[in-house]
Amino acid sequence: MATPGSHTYAEITSQPVAWAEAVHQVRAQSSRLAALAPSSYAQTLFTGCGSTYYLSLAAAALTQALTGAVCRALPASELLLYPDSAYPARGARTLLIAVSRSGSTTETLRAVERFRQEGRGDVVVVCNYPDAALVAMGDVTILLPAGREESVAQTRSFASMYVACVAMAAVWGNVPGALDSLERLPPVGERLLGQYEALARQWGENTTLNQIFFLGSGPRYGLACEAALKMKEMSLTVVEPFHFLEFRHGPMSMVTPQTLVVGLLSDTARAQEEAVMQQMAHLGAQTLTLGENRTDVAFDSGVPEQMRGVLYLPILQLMAYYRALSKGLDPDRPHNLSKVIELDVL
Amino acid sequence: MATPGSHTYAEITSQPVAWAEAVHQVRAQSSRLAALAPSSYAQTLFTGCGSTYYLSLAAAALTQALTGAVCRALPASELLLYPDSAYPARGARTLLIAVSRSGSTTETLRAVERFRQEGRGDVVVVCNYPDAALVAMGDVTILLPAGREESVAQTRSFASMYVACVAMAAVWGNVPGALDSLERLPPVGERLLGQYEALARQWGENTTLNQIFFLGSGPRYGLACEAALKMKEMSLTVVEPFHFLEFRHGPMSMVTPQTLVVGLLSDTARAQEEAVMQQMAHLGAQTLTLGENRTDVAFDSGVPEQMRGVLYLPILQLMAYYRALSKGLDPDRPHNLSKVIELDVL
Repeated sequence: MATPGSHTYAEITSQPVAWAEAVHQVRAQSSRLAALAPSSYAQTLFTGCGSTYYLSLAAAALTQALTGAVCRALPASELLLYPDSAYPARGARTLLIAVSRSGSTTETLRAVERFRQEGRGDVVVVCNYPDAALVAMGDVTILLPAGREESVAQTRSFASMYVACVAMAAVWGNVPGALDSLERLPPVGERLLGQYEALARQWGENTTLNQIFFLGSGPRYGLACEAALKMKEMSLTVVEPFHFLEFRHGPMSMVTPQTLVVGLLSDTARAQEEAVMQQMAHLGAQTLTLGENRTDVAFDSGVPEQMRGVLYLPILQLMAYYRALSKGLDPDRPHNLSKVIELDVL
Repeated sequence: MATPGSHTYAEITSQPVAWAEAVHQVRAQSSRLAALAPSSYAQTLFTGCGSTYYLSLAAAALTQALTGAVCRALPASELLLYPDSAYPARGARTLLIAVSRSGSTTETLRAVERFRQEGRGDVVVVCNYPDAALVAMGDVTILLPAGREESVAQTRSFASMYVACVAMAAVWGNVPGALDSLERLPPVGERLLGQYEALARQWGENTTLNQIFFLGSGPRYGLACEAALKMKEMSLTVVEPFHFLEFRHGPMSMVTPQTLVVGLLSDTARAQEEAVMQQMAHLGAQTLTLGENRTDVAFDSGVPEQMRGVLYLPILQLMAYYRALSKGLDPDRPHNLSKVIELDVL
């Protein structure tokens, strides 16, 4: 039997290779992608389940910012069960971006199948497994086999699919030099893994904490959701994600000295986000910040803000891994969960 | 000094009067509202902070279902800090629905102010306080003074503003008889408060519970978020809301016998939602269901599904109230919070 967490650890630490593949795959398909520009649709809708729904939230915010088209995200199950709340009236077309590690998640498959049958628009698939049923269902499919993994909780796979979505947004937004910027990220990721693993471990093994909040805004909100889910799945910790300023409207009632507030800081709204972190410290919370510079985890990447989102992930994934181990749990096999979620009732 | 929770209790139990006022106010302005039809805009964007952001999520899903226009919700702070992720490129107009109990929440005020300055589209304001700064900023303003309240946590106010948004969606969607249906809700609310207060108290005083999940899909997801926030603010309980099928993608790892899963069941997707509840019971969770019939809290309202959403609220608000009291907390004055959130840093 494998050492507890050995797959998860290997997947987290090897992810920069999968980031590089993602940029390469999008670049290779950039002219086919350009033919499906978000601005030609009434809406661009990103969808997935669990982690890939959170990826969808992050990708929609970024794609809207770079293209000026209306972009949003919904869980695949909601598209399936409540299509009237997801799609505009007939005649108004949707660009659907379906994101799935396995390419065989029941809800996502069924949602895309029905979308096609009903002729609601065009489909881009982002997926790690070449033989999956979803692969054949895209007008364009971005395949990322280097992101495949053994663990239940997505780490390397998530990062690879996220980088692919950032690269697609850059293609659609005609952002000059963006793909080159993305290609500079893997060595930065390698460096951060070495530089901050000890800090991730230290926080992961901090047994004084009994709840963790992850704050992120704009394109970082979905990343905060994913960081929270990783910590929850692997370490069964009480966690919740919020937009920075939303945290002040109710949820901060939960802050105590046993609370860690993790801030995914931007450049764009740094002053406002730092003010929230300071207020939480004042209420007694412990805090951890990540960002380009002047933060506990400092990327020092030189890569433009909108392209560097993936850098928030590895250290937070490692923190979840170490917290799971310190609680005697196996990060590779979370409680109650299986790797691919299939559902009979749909 | 007032008895702990006396304001909250009075506000929860008197809310049906405020529902009736909301329908009346929207009916009185229906021709002015009809001139701002969501289908004439690139998107309809609902916004608020905390509770009213959750209201926005619920209202956007319902308004899209009834009108076929693209509708979404974002926190007001996100509109302000990340406008490029919220608004489409210039030329594509937005209908902004700004929802605020006080009408003086910093983020909402600033977001609407800037929206107007930048000429991004038209504004509908929904608010409980006639003298508030926000009131003058709407092309149409729906004023609901019967929803005003003394407590920090929104209960009656939330319900009144939610009913107003449902009524607006019905006007925009030209749903025959919808406003008449809404007028049948207040007596149903009165009856439910009497019929199920004992059950709300019993669950509220159940000290075996250490975490509560609220599940809702489609237009009920935002209501599940609000029910969760009420429980968190008033009783400092570990709670989290999810879409029904999303709960299976990771978060259900947290389920133990000390977990209560509350299901806001629909008619539309009853089979799938019940399957999730049964799976959670099988994993050991305690469960509580609300819906029109065949549920622990049964509305028996005869009102169409899309019009009856407010009926999920009072019993869950009472449950939060009783749990706060049983933990020795004052529901009127949540920990760390104040009634109107103002922020210097914006």
